[in-house]
Amino acid sequence: MELTSQIKYDERGLVPAIIQDHITNEVLMLAYMNQESLKRTLASGKTHFWSRSRQKYWQKGEHSGHIQLVKDVLIDCDNDTLVIKVKQNVAACHKGYRTCFYRKLEEGTFEVFQEKAFEEDSVY
Amino acid sequence: MELTSQIKYDERGLVPAIIQDHITNEVLMLAYMNQESLKRTLASGKTHFWSRSRQKYWQKGEHSGHIQLVKDVLIDCDNDTLVIKVKQNVAACHKGYRTCFYRKLEEGTFEVFQEKAFEEDSVY
Repeated sequence: MELTSQIKYDERGLVPAIIQDHITNEVLMLAYMNQESLKRTLASGKTHFWSRSRQKYWQKGEHSGHIQLVKDVLIDCDNDTLVIKVKQNVAACHKGYRTCFYRKLEEGTFEVFQEKAFEEDSVY
Repeated sequence: MELTSQIKYDERGLVPAIIQDHITNEVLMLAYMNQESLKRTLASGKTHFWSRSRQKYWQKGEHSGHIQLVKDVLIDCDNDTLVIKVKQNVAACHKGYRTCFYRKLEEGTFEVFQEKAFEEDSVY
């Protein structure tokens, strides 16, 4: 698919993908795609990423079932960042929260402000 | 400020910062911060970044006046990505759109779907 070659990948061959809830616009997570993981995402309609730490492909929810169904794919003015709007099954974060951004800055420290969507021990 | 050292910067010393409208939750842009630009952001209440291409600090809106006032700073579970909720003056994108993500995938190509917020020639 020629589309995936229009994107400017960085020196690591990666593009950051901001994953956003397609209804609430909450930012669920950020992960990285290379050309092949973007192809897999577009072909399957489910998000696939490249893990920098494990150096392998992964599909979001492949173990937990917390998959993300792709609703829209947006690109920025520099062609080097994606926003992928998704329907998130259960929750995005392996820590049990709806989003990975469950902490925010409060008087100099990051404090949890979200409620848990599930207990992580029961899933992972 | 010790806070900025809790963050896991990548091998380039950078952390991606997703800039989000604090009311609509629209993703406005993504840019990169190093420890010093995060310190400047927290100290001033206005977003400051590190430009990878120009290898210099920049404050969003320093030329255009389209500054971003910081409302909330969120961090993800891995401590390696920030979401910064802001009050955006006028528009985030230098191309004239409210957000940098003004194109989305439609039948295999990226098509503009946002209206312009200003004419870029009049500002930049």
